[in-house]
Amino acid sequence: MDSKIISPAVIGRLPRYYRYLGDLKDEGVERISSQELSELMKVTASQIRQDFNNFGGFGQQGYGYNVEYLYNEIGKLLGLHENHHLIIIGAGNLGRALTNYSNFENRGFIFEGIFDQNPALIGKKIGELTVMPMEEIESFILAHSIDIVVIAIPKTGAVAVADRVVNCGIKAIWNFAHTDLNVPDGVVVENVHLSDSLMKLSYTLSTKNNSVD
Amino acid sequence: MDSKIISPAVIGRLPRYYRYLGDLKDEGVERISSQELSELMKVTASQIRQDFNNFGGFGQQGYGYNVEYLYNEIGKLLGLHENHHLIIIGAGNLGRALTNYSNFENRGFIFEGIFDQNPALIGKKIGELTVMPMEEIESFILAHSIDIVVIAIPKTGAVAVADRVVNCGIKAIWNFAHTDLNVPDGVVVENVHLSDSLMKLSYTLSTKNNSVD
Repeated sequence: MDSKIISPAVIGRLPRYYRYLGDLKDEGVERISSQELSELMKVTASQIRQDFNNFGGFGQQGYGYNVEYLYNEIGKLLGLHENHHLIIIGAGNLGRALTNYSNFENRGFIFEGIFDQNPALIGKKIGELTVMPMEEIESFILAHSIDIVVIAIPKTGAVAVADRVVNCGIKAIWNFAHTDLNVPDGVVVENVHLSDSLMKLSYTLSTKNNSVD
Repeated sequence: MDSKIISPAVIGRLPRYYRYLGDLKDEGVERISSQELSELMKVTASQIRQDFNNFGGFGQQGYGYNVEYLYNEIGKLLGLHENHHLIIIGAGNLGRALTNYSNFENRGFIFEGIFDQNPALIGKKIGELTVMPMEEIESFILAHSIDIVVIAIPKTGAVAVADRVVNCGIKAIWNFAHTDLNVPDGVVVENVHLSDSLMKLSYTLSTKNNSVD
């Protein structure tokens, strides 16, 4: 890759392309045109071509794209050709659910450790992992080449924990805490605010009900 | 509300305003200017005013907005002044984590039932709920005035289940399955594709690593 800046909107669409191409590959489809992909994904063919042109176009020749090639190339862009090493802060229900989600491991996202501040949880087994105390976060990150930290604790402790892991050199945080983290430039936070997502649904329901009146 | 169409981008920002205003209210802040809110939320004051003008502006008079009034008004827009009744399809790790997330219940999102196809899970207690068989989904939806269905099963079964609940009149689906659901007009799907979110992080890590070379 050269240093061309790709817009966040394009990057945000890459995982969805990757998901559809993976399904097509699994179904044995070898080639697909941008028009067919467009109908499948319900986006315009011109958007698909524009998105792909950010990355050199992926060589559409003759009849459409080679599905497996395109899948592999987008996978490489997404950093899926190498393993990532994660820890989870928070061994509550959400932390446990994420740890046990085998999909992530299949994609090369390997959960190496889980931490909690609750003494009753420390030492407990969650899948293959044993819950460790919060004091050990820094030494564990350094010893295990951790590159992604998952924050799955309530908002009260999230900001302080984010500061700690950023000080250890972590550049990527997957944040489930119900708060925004302020991190320095060069650190990326991907937020999953579940309540926000649910509220968007109830907004729509509420508006529908009102418009019936 | 009149029938003015509000853009999805504006709607998408409402939960974040609501979150910040809730924190301000809890801290005892009574009034806030768009400029102060702008600094706190790291968006421009003009965006805030534009967003709020979609809903009549919320009466900024003298010094700034009344925090509690604004919080309550946005809550009403988000449909949080009334309870919503949810069921979860899928009693795996994720379904269990969602059921036990007390934040949702505090906002009026009440989990009424949980369903799974695994006979070993049926009859098991998860928090206050008992896992029910998939055959009972339709009758339960009708008997309990369910308005939101949460899909927390693998992608293979998700499309068929979505069709079933839509046929029961469900207008809002919170989808955690790793696939897009095709639903008729008038039904809203809010997707939480966790793998997609994680891939956006690894894209950024991957790009950083490449740019060091």
